[in-house]
Amino acid sequence: MAFTSQTASRLEEQAIELPSWAFGNSGTRFKVFTQPGVPRDPFEKIADAAQVHKHTGLSPTVALHIPWDKVDDYAALREHAEDHGVALGTVNSNTFQDDDYKLGSLAHRDPTIRRKAIDHHLECIDIMDMTGSRDLKIWLADGTNYPGQDDMRGRQDRIAASLEEIYARIGDEQRLVLEYKIFEPAFYHMDIPDWGTSYAQVSALGERAVVCLDTGHHAPSTNIEFIVMQLLRLGKLGSFDFNSRFYADDDLIVGAADPFQLFRIIVEVIRGGGYGEEGDTAFMLDQCHNIEDKIPGQIRSVLNVQEMTARALLIDLPSLDAAQAAGDVLTANGTMMDAFYTDVRPDLATWRQERGLPADPIAAYAASGYQQKIAADRVGGTQAGWGA
Amino acid sequence: MAFTSQTASRLEEQAIELPSWAFGNSGTRFKVFTQPGVPRDPFEKIADAAQVHKHTGLSPTVALHIPWDKVDDYAALREHAEDHGVALGTVNSNTFQDDDYKLGSLAHRDPTIRRKAIDHHLECIDIMDMTGSRDLKIWLADGTNYPGQDDMRGRQDRIAASLEEIYARIGDEQRLVLEYKIFEPAFYHMDIPDWGTSYAQVSALGERAVVCLDTGHHAPSTNIEFIVMQLLRLGKLGSFDFNSRFYADDDLIVGAADPFQLFRIIVEVIRGGGYGEEGDTAFMLDQCHNIEDKIPGQIRSVLNVQEMTARALLIDLPSLDAAQAAGDVLTANGTMMDAFYTDVRPDLATWRQERGLPADPIAAYAASGYQQKIAADRVGGTQAGWGA
Amino acid sequence: MAFTSQTASRLEEQAIELPSWAFGNSGTRFKVFTQPGVPRDPFEKIADAAQVHKHTGLSPTVALHIPWDKVDDYAALREHAEDHGVALGTVNSNTFQDDDYKLGSLAHRDPTIRRKAIDHHLECIDIMDMTGSRDLKIWLADGTNYPGQDDMRGRQDRIAASLEEIYARIGDEQRLVLEYKIFEPAFYHMDIPDWGTSYAQVSALGERAVVCLDTGHHAPSTNIEFIVMQLLRLGKLGSFDFNSRFYADDDLIVGAADPFQLFRIIVEVIRGGGYGEEGDTAFMLDQCHNIEDKIPGQIRSVLNVQEMTARALLIDLPSLDAAQAAGDVLTANGTMMDAFYTDVRPDLATWRQERGLPADPIAAYAASGYQQKIAADRVGGTQAGWGA
Amino acid sequence: MAFTSQTASRLEEQAIELPSWAFGNSGTRFKVFTQPGVPRDPFEKIADAAQVHKHTGLSPTVALHIPWDKVDDYAALREHAEDHGVALGTVNSNTFQDDDYKLGSLAHRDPTIRRKAIDHHLECIDIMDMTGSRDLKIWLADGTNYPGQDDMRGRQDRIAASLEEIYARIGDEQRLVLEYKIFEPAFYHMDIPDWGTSYAQVSALGERAVVCLDTGHHAPSTNIEFIVMQLLRLGKLGSFDFNSRFYADDDLIVGAADPFQLFRIIVEVIRGGGYGEEGDTAFMLDQCHNIEDKIPGQIRSVLNVQEMTARALLIDLPSLDAAQAAGDVLTANGTMMDAFYTDVRPDLATWRQERGLPADPIAAYAASGYQQKIAADRVGGTQAGWGA
Repeated sequence: MAFTSQTASRLEEQAIELPSWAFGNSGTRFKVFTQPGVPRDPFEKIADAAQVHKHTGLSPTVALHIPWDKVDDYAALREHAEDHGVALGTVNSNTFQDDDYKLGSLAHRDPTIRRKAIDHHLECIDIMDMTGSRDLKIWLADGTNYPGQDDMRGRQDRIAASLEEIYARIGDEQRLVLEYKIFEPAFYHMDIPDWGTSYAQVSALGERAVVCLDTGHHAPSTNIEFIVMQLLRLGKLGSFDFNSRFYADDDLIVGAADPFQLFRIIVEVIRGGGYGEEGDTAFMLDQCHNIEDKIPGQIRSVLNVQEMTARALLIDLPSLDAAQAAGDVLTANGTMMDAFYTDVRPDLATWRQERGLPADPIAAYAASGYQQKIAADRVGGTQAGWGA
Repeated sequence: MAFTSQTASRLEEQAIELPSWAFGNSGTRFKVFTQPGVPRDPFEKIADAAQVHKHTGLSPTVALHIPWDKVDDYAALREHAEDHGVALGTVNSNTFQDDDYKLGSLAHRDPTIRRKAIDHHLECIDIMDMTGSRDLKIWLADGTNYPGQDDMRGRQDRIAASLEEIYARIGDEQRLVLEYKIFEPAFYHMDIPDWGTSYAQVSALGERAVVCLDTGHHAPSTNIEFIVMQLLRLGKLGSFDFNSRFYADDDLIVGAADPFQLFRIIVEVIRGGGYGEEGDTAFMLDQCHNIEDKIPGQIRSVLNVQEMTARALLIDLPSLDAAQAAGDVLTANGTMMDAFYTDVRPDLATWRQERGLPADPIAAYAASGYQQKIAADRVGGTQAGWGA
Repeated sequence: MAFTSQTASRLEEQAIELPSWAFGNSGTRFKVFTQPGVPRDPFEKIADAAQVHKHTGLSPTVALHIPWDKVDDYAALREHAEDHGVALGTVNSNTFQDDDYKLGSLAHRDPTIRRKAIDHHLECIDIMDMTGSRDLKIWLADGTNYPGQDDMRGRQDRIAASLEEIYARIGDEQRLVLEYKIFEPAFYHMDIPDWGTSYAQVSALGERAVVCLDTGHHAPSTNIEFIVMQLLRLGKLGSFDFNSRFYADDDLIVGAADPFQLFRIIVEVIRGGGYGEEGDTAFMLDQCHNIEDKIPGQIRSVLNVQEMTARALLIDLPSLDAAQAAGDVLTANGTMMDAFYTDVRPDLATWRQERGLPADPIAAYAASGYQQKIAADRVGGTQAGWGA
Repeated sequence: MAFTSQTASRLEEQAIELPSWAFGNSGTRFKVFTQPGVPRDPFEKIADAAQVHKHTGLSPTVALHIPWDKVDDYAALREHAEDHGVALGTVNSNTFQDDDYKLGSLAHRDPTIRRKAIDHHLECIDIMDMTGSRDLKIWLADGTNYPGQDDMRGRQDRIAASLEEIYARIGDEQRLVLEYKIFEPAFYHMDIPDWGTSYAQVSALGERAVVCLDTGHHAPSTNIEFIVMQLLRLGKLGSFDFNSRFYADDDLIVGAADPFQLFRIIVEVIRGGGYGEEGDTAFMLDQCHNIEDKIPGQIRSVLNVQEMTARALLIDLPSLDAAQAAGDVLTANGTMMDAFYTDVRPDLATWRQERGLPADPIAAYAASGYQQKIAADRVGGTQAGWGA
């Protein structure tokens, strides 16, 4: 139960990918509030992301979103990232912001539009080859708003066929990661609404096709850590999109809404072999900082994940197993809670200092003057955003 | 149980207000898809709304949204509406699209911003005086995204004080209507999240302050018709914002997701004395036609409300009461269902024809050529939308 | 769109299995209210179930629940059923009412208890051999109430191993049907909580292992007809447990809470090839008549399913497909709604009369005197119930 | 932020009432699992409850449930309690386990049954006079299962009239506490489903009528601490029924499902003046220990409430207020989280030792031999339970 050198060592295995779009403007359908200093291009987004890694040592890679992060020269972008101490990570496709996709993309009835959507994904893989990215993450906004609007079965079959063509182009060291979401932007049905559908689709593709679990994409009262357990058991938990929610897909700071749930999720990742060097499950953030500062918001987020990981690593596993085997419900639960209630923050401050990182990353960032600098420098141009 | 002349007569009492913004562009945070022929100013919105009334006889008034529908000359707008056979209705305030309101409006800690938000409402009442509107509808986007972000109690008190000032300016024939919503755009707490809060706030103001019930603004599994019953019992059901939802505040066509729920709601409105000439509860739509045609979408919506009203009027009340009194659960429920399952559409077609309206309003609108005309005429300019 | 002879003929393919336990007492954890005339043994339950079939022609089989319906002589029970014009159907196992199963059955850590639970299922198959039943339906109450209480992964693996042993004993003409449920009686996690888990488990077993979908066993706002579509697409929709819910697993009369949802479900069953002679998906009821009369409650239920099936058969499929292909959202949805809003009850009354059935089954049952007879006859003994 | 003598002193103000029924058998509608040593009468329940207080110093009173806890001699029961170091607390009425109440109690259409239900409450007040109880807690199971089953408005009016009669009998130092619940045991509507309804009802009665908030009785995603804030603001938060839930009214150990939510609730109680000597809000537990040991389950529960109270008392209020006033979202939220993440358990162990209590109450209870003693002694007789 103590924070040991082994705990410290296992924490070194942690890497949490940052989304480039978290540094751009975001908002709700009602309003996007802007902030001073917001990046105007992918290079500035990466510079901001690098600040998070600099102060925490936790986020060595940055995910891109195409076309939001399209550049003329990906080698230059890659070099820019490396110069800032980070690398380019997952490439996310986008088939929800073109007028052609109003009624669907990979599921569309019109083969021309389907072709366009497939080609977009092939282009993403081309970009992955240039950026050195391993994962192509596909989140489909496809769905319908009204019963009868389209044939759900036909759509599912067309998605399967489209994915097959995309998967055929994936390299041997690359993966296709299929995300699911229960609703939004479609309000009657989403074509990939749940883990079961994503699992059935990627299972039909092959070994390098896996599932992405976004913690905000479930029905109320879904037990998310159960899904983590099951997908790891089935060998298909490719990655996480971390964030937190009280109601729908709120995209709040991970751990802000239900820290105990985050703890339970990470417990299952570790237990199921998905964590760190032994595992193959990518940790990513997918959040909106609509009203709070973006860089500190990301710092807070990766720290939350690290803190919960530390707590999860503290569980007294032999005691837990013994209590479970004895059917001692209260002791087994109590063993979990002991780890959750342990305040790991002092140990993590030490862990950071021992690794040349600031004890208090948020204070260190605030003291660095970076925020003032970008607010002063980034004048003119168009702030990056979702482009809705 | 038959559709009688009395049914026909009671249906003549129905009026369903249309929202001007339903004719402009709308969408999700991901994308707003545009449509040809979308209005570019309030005058064109009213012309479109008048089409719905022309073909259905059900929507004699149009609600405005300030500042979206601000014009230089409200008398001209009023005359324009009358020329098109409709009148101006409810005025909706908007305190969610100004950078100042990022952390709140009537609830804001800063008295300057509160002042600005109060003044906006006073301006709305000035406009009401010019448009001849009865109702000022207030929906507050105020809330917080994170626990601790602000003091919820202080916010509630500031809203109470702000509303008091606004209410003092309301005319003797006018009403202040306070809407509630469980979440969005705020994701930890909304300041007016439920009917209880809205009721407590308007009760503190006075008789001409009432509640607006938006059918999409509740937690999953909330029994909405119960709230209708309760607010009518307490004398505080001012108006409806009709729409339908499968998940969150989906803003789909009313009756599209759960027609039986719409039926039950209208049953309670009639039973509670809120319907028609004897009642004081305004029926309004508040919907988004993100992917479907907007004018036919509104026609479909008012027809749905009328059809369910007709069904509700068909309930055999003496039989229902007798079964209830006898504790005969199956017969009582069966009496409700008999009315719901009755196909009133042929009778309503006749009803329309007898009143000089088209038997099939959707077909009549399609045949009118209006859609083609506006698509051809409305070229250039900026299409109206939510302005997010 | 008209009710044709083809509609009538397809309706003849319908069979809805009744649960023997629907005729016994049921209730909530707070109270079981008894009713006069409730059966005291499986023979009386079958006699009651036969009444439903007699008046509707829709329910030729009765599902058994072991041990609730254990008898000494299953051949006699089978003959008794046949004498009453019905047959014995699905056999349901029960591993939730023995003290040994407090912490699980097929998932239990203790091999002795697992053995006992497996043996119970083997005994059920023995009974199936005697009753001529095709399906063994397994609903596991297994789960945990507190995080950490047990290892979820280990439980999943133990269930897989247990099911494998049971499946090995299933005959060539028999099926293992695995039901899922999100919660209750376990409140932290259920071992088979969702269709994805049930699908993964039965897929590992083999072709004759399929999924049972109980319409009351999902998270709020789950799109159930999507799951119907997906399971049929994957060849794994074995059966339905029909009922309806407003909140949790309310077990109300099917179609009572959301008739439009029932319609959409049946639309997908037909579209996916699961209906009638071409299909392999069993329709069953699984309901509680806690406060309403039980036999009329079951009559009402099978009629609701038939009425929605008739509506679903009325959909103008060529028009629907054309509207979908044209991306005409309103017309496509309207085509669905036209069928839903059609009042099929007069045609179904005729359908019944043409087949020697009463036009109004509920009235006919009421007039038959059966209820009075069983209330008078069934005095003494212990009324059947869930035995909780 | 440090645990000071002032923190310690404020913690002394805490009292958490135990429910007598938590020591009896409980379960789900599927099965009640029994445990050795379960009390067989109210005297034994009180003896068990006294064990919780003995080891924690937190639970000086025990709530009774009538008729479950009916005795011939309440003076003797009171004396028995005092002998064990506790006092008798809230009296809970029960109108859900008599056949007469199948369709309602205070809301029933039949005046005879209403009379009976009112008289039951008058009898409860008689008992309160004998036990010295302050609060009459009323939870009504009244509701309907099917739309149309009864007239919801009429039921509401009858409840109002019934409560008026009960309230008239309440003594000057006594209170009527009205609980609300969204569903169960009724599945279409509950007559008192939400805080708004309970608030409207008790406001009509008078000052000594207040609301009881059971943390498990809300729709999914309801912000409970907002309701706490609002009811305290309106002067109507009479008491809590603490427990926790993942899905419905799971009645798990308080703090087990979402400890952060419990923290936020207590933060609002303290902020709103409801805590301790300055407040008037009673803390009670209302839980089921279906599978875990009952006495340790209650010890764990009161400790959870105390731990969260300690954390809530640690919030750096001046810093919080400053960050809120500055609109510094991240710092304000961070200030809350700092308190939540502080491990108060060592300080609380010291707090206990300084007051002559065991540092580890669960270990102390286990070492006391009490469990073994009651298991050995309480042989024969009928174990207490809900009596369903």
